[in-house]
Amino acid sequence: MDNVTQLKTYLADIVHLQHAAALLGWDQQVNMPHKGAPARAEQLATLSRLAHEQFISEKTGRLLENAEADVADLDADHDNAALVRVVRHDYNLATRVPTALVEELARTTTLAHEIWTKAREAADFNQFEDALARIIDLKRQQAEALGYEDRPYDALLDQYEPQMKTADVERLFDELRAELVPFVAQIFERLDAVDDAPIRQRFEVDKQEAFGLKVLKRIGYDFERGRQDRSVHPFTTEFSINDVRITTRFEEDWLPSALFGSIHEGGHAMYEQGCNPTYEGTFLAGGTSLGIHESQSRLWENVVGRSRAFWGVFYGDLQALFPAQLQDVPMEAFYRAINAVSRSLIRVEADEVTYNLHIMLRFELENALLEGKLAVHDVRDAWNDKMHDYLGVTPPDDGKHGVLQDVHWSSGLVGYFPTYSLGNFLSVQFWEQAVHDVPSIPEDIQRGEFGSLLSWLRENIHRHGRKYFPAELTERVTGGPIQIAPFMRYLKAKYTDIYGL
Amino acid sequence: MDNVTQLKTYLADIVHLQHAAALLGWDQQVNMPHKGAPARAEQLATLSRLAHEQFISEKTGRLLENAEADVADLDADHDNAALVRVVRHDYNLATRVPTALVEELARTTTLAHEIWTKAREAADFNQFEDALARIIDLKRQQAEALGYEDRPYDALLDQYEPQMKTADVERLFDELRAELVPFVAQIFERLDAVDDAPIRQRFEVDKQEAFGLKVLKRIGYDFERGRQDRSVHPFTTEFSINDVRITTRFEEDWLPSALFGSIHEGGHAMYEQGCNPTYEGTFLAGGTSLGIHESQSRLWENVVGRSRAFWGVFYGDLQALFPAQLQDVPMEAFYRAINAVSRSLIRVEADEVTYNLHIMLRFELENALLEGKLAVHDVRDAWNDKMHDYLGVTPPDDGKHGVLQDVHWSSGLVGYFPTYSLGNFLSVQFWEQAVHDVPSIPEDIQRGEFGSLLSWLRENIHRHGRKYFPAELTERVTGGPIQIAPFMRYLKAKYTDIYGL
Repeated sequence: MDNVTQLKTYLADIVHLQHAAALLGWDQQVNMPHKGAPARAEQLATLSRLAHEQFISEKTGRLLENAEADVADLDADHDNAALVRVVRHDYNLATRVPTALVEELARTTTLAHEIWTKAREAADFNQFEDALARIIDLKRQQAEALGYEDRPYDALLDQYEPQMKTADVERLFDELRAELVPFVAQIFERLDAVDDAPIRQRFEVDKQEAFGLKVLKRIGYDFERGRQDRSVHPFTTEFSINDVRITTRFEEDWLPSALFGSIHEGGHAMYEQGCNPTYEGTFLAGGTSLGIHESQSRLWENVVGRSRAFWGVFYGDLQALFPAQLQDVPMEAFYRAINAVSRSLIRVEADEVTYNLHIMLRFELENALLEGKLAVHDVRDAWNDKMHDYLGVTPPDDGKHGVLQDVHWSSGLVGYFPTYSLGNFLSVQFWEQAVHDVPSIPEDIQRGEFGSLLSWLRENIHRHGRKYFPAELTERVTGGPIQIAPFMRYLKAKYTDIYGL
Repeated sequence: MDNVTQLKTYLADIVHLQHAAALLGWDQQVNMPHKGAPARAEQLATLSRLAHEQFISEKTGRLLENAEADVADLDADHDNAALVRVVRHDYNLATRVPTALVEELARTTTLAHEIWTKAREAADFNQFEDALARIIDLKRQQAEALGYEDRPYDALLDQYEPQMKTADVERLFDELRAELVPFVAQIFERLDAVDDAPIRQRFEVDKQEAFGLKVLKRIGYDFERGRQDRSVHPFTTEFSINDVRITTRFEEDWLPSALFGSIHEGGHAMYEQGCNPTYEGTFLAGGTSLGIHESQSRLWENVVGRSRAFWGVFYGDLQALFPAQLQDVPMEAFYRAINAVSRSLIRVEADEVTYNLHIMLRFELENALLEGKLAVHDVRDAWNDKMHDYLGVTPPDDGKHGVLQDVHWSSGLVGYFPTYSLGNFLSVQFWEQAVHDVPSIPEDIQRGEFGSLLSWLRENIHRHGRKYFPAELTERVTGGPIQIAPFMRYLKAKYTDIYGL
């Protein structure tokens, strides 16, 4: 057996343990009777520990070094070279942080999560302050352990968006801020121009589900290699390239929740389903970063799913399912309703115009915290000030409308938020490239044919799995780095029209 | 940490891996999109291998010896003594068979299963003959490796029914044969006395499901610690004392399939749910043998579920759900229909009167094969002869009505069948003891109160988990060994009445 095969074979156990753990997690969200939780936590802890121990072992290091020697002369584009690169990246991430710090992080975030839950409930940031201070301190230590050239945030960001630099994100957000904040202000002056009443009626859940399944099938999510279930928080998870599952949640009084949630998760899932099948069971399977992943979900959810062309295909079906609610609602009114902009206080409910302002705010706070330019004690005020600057609103509370709304920080996820915006920017950048390469795509979609778009995504993005780091993939696909311009062009065209600016 | 705690802690990983594997298996039967199968097989193989390797390691042996020294002075009834006994039993089973033989058995049965599937389809025993011969040869080797005092079959039986001896099973079956065969012949002369047409109508699946769930809740299956799903082959599986799941299958034209299937699996599941919670995550959790397990499922399915008292409680509800089918069917006619006896050719469809004849036949053939008294080439003829002797019928084919009907032999499960009959015998023996100890049980059931029976089962059987080997448990519960007499008394009283003998 050659060295790369030896490495692959050894790591296959780890992939299988991780996929088994993913199934246990899926089951916990979807099926598990609630009293099964304590045993499930033990089982998950065992699987994760066994996978982690085996991965950080000296044997992995030895096999990896041997494999690196083997691929040294290979073209960088060779799958084996890519595999070794990816394993090296993950191995460094996993081994550079001392076990004591990993354990301290786990302990602290477990406690912090409980504290956050109560503080959010009480809408009282002060209750969460000490826990957040401990987490920021540990994240600083983690960044030092992981290492970085320029900014400590680089080290944290790299876990979710390999090789992306903080300075690049800042440049993107600076550009975005300059263009978006005034544009948003223009829209805010005309909020009355769009009425979202059509999607705020009572829509029977069973019919919503049937419609969502129909849309998912039509856009290309493969139900022979996946399924949709219900869970409190929608997510996508995979146990194989051939078993990629999504979940959704239904709100009877709010149609977009399940519908766009399903399309969003479907976008994530089609990315995983489109991976080169020869990567099955190796570290090359999966998405290459959270940002690229989000580009796929947002492309389908927003660029496709909230377009006139898309509803030209599906609106008749939706009306037929919900005649009492929609027969008197013209398609154009429905299209405007699903694209209504608001002075959103809550990130997860924000429209595509204001969404990135929420992310920019979080990114700025995280960086300032990590670099000691902002004290934890002042986070709430800083949050509220920025909400006022960017969105013209002041949160009425610290809880679900304010600084405590997101779970991320309490779970130790610092450096994660920017990937949502990177995904939004890339969704349009990839879309423009797809239409440039295959000009029939918009018309195909108007005819209800989504195959030409999906094929382009498969060929250019999905099949590569983790083979290329995100910047390299973006360069290969679009001929340049990630940019704001396509996204802003898209927003301006779409919303100038909708709001009659 | 004392030695027993060290052993427990070390073995907890194995328990968690086994439970994770069980969940992967459950998901495969219940949810998995079919293209996920190859990856699932790899994941299951990894989990099983890791659990097996860790269990048969020298470390287990060392910790076990230390723990044995620790418990040497303890009362045999102490939980720690029991734990060490159970681990020793499993450790011997797992380590005595050489790895090469384990692998050869796995390879051979994987192939044999495919051959069996085709042979069964073609209803041609000859196609399966060579595979069966190889399996019998390997099972003989396995028996030698496991070791036995008297009969090679003892070693195989011990895997499913610890410490049970072949000679004891023979004695039970000899007694059974003498009493049952003439009794069955009497019933066969009066088969026309019962009409099963009432249960052979069209019963909507959704209503069947609703009714089954109602019955399960009522008899005491805890849905906060379990759930029922659908699968091709019904089964019970557990991932914790607090997460014990069952499956069922629905046949629209045959009411008993799902209904009695659900009660049967519910009986298995209540056994697991009733285990002492302090055994969670240890080798003491679970059922002590397949025979004891089957006693619980059969007690609820047959002794309770096919009784007049049970239907006095539920028949009104069933009629209300299926008025078109049942409003003109008196309860007595329904009761007779669900207890109809037939000249059954197929074990899994057999009524409770003829069921054990099917098992006796298989047990006799397995023993004769293992001891070289029967050639594999002659198995089909021997099967058909015994079917004629015991049931007065000759199978019309080798396939699903004949010698190839069961999956067991192709999977290497030799020594497994008798546990079904042991369960049937014990179901009545335990029932008689329960009624002796708590005389109100029959009246409680007539009033729809199943708690007094379930409490007795919990206290006397369920809570002990694997603490006592089956013979010891039976002795503790009933004051004596397993017997045929209670079962035959029950059959004779019930069917003399139904068939007017």
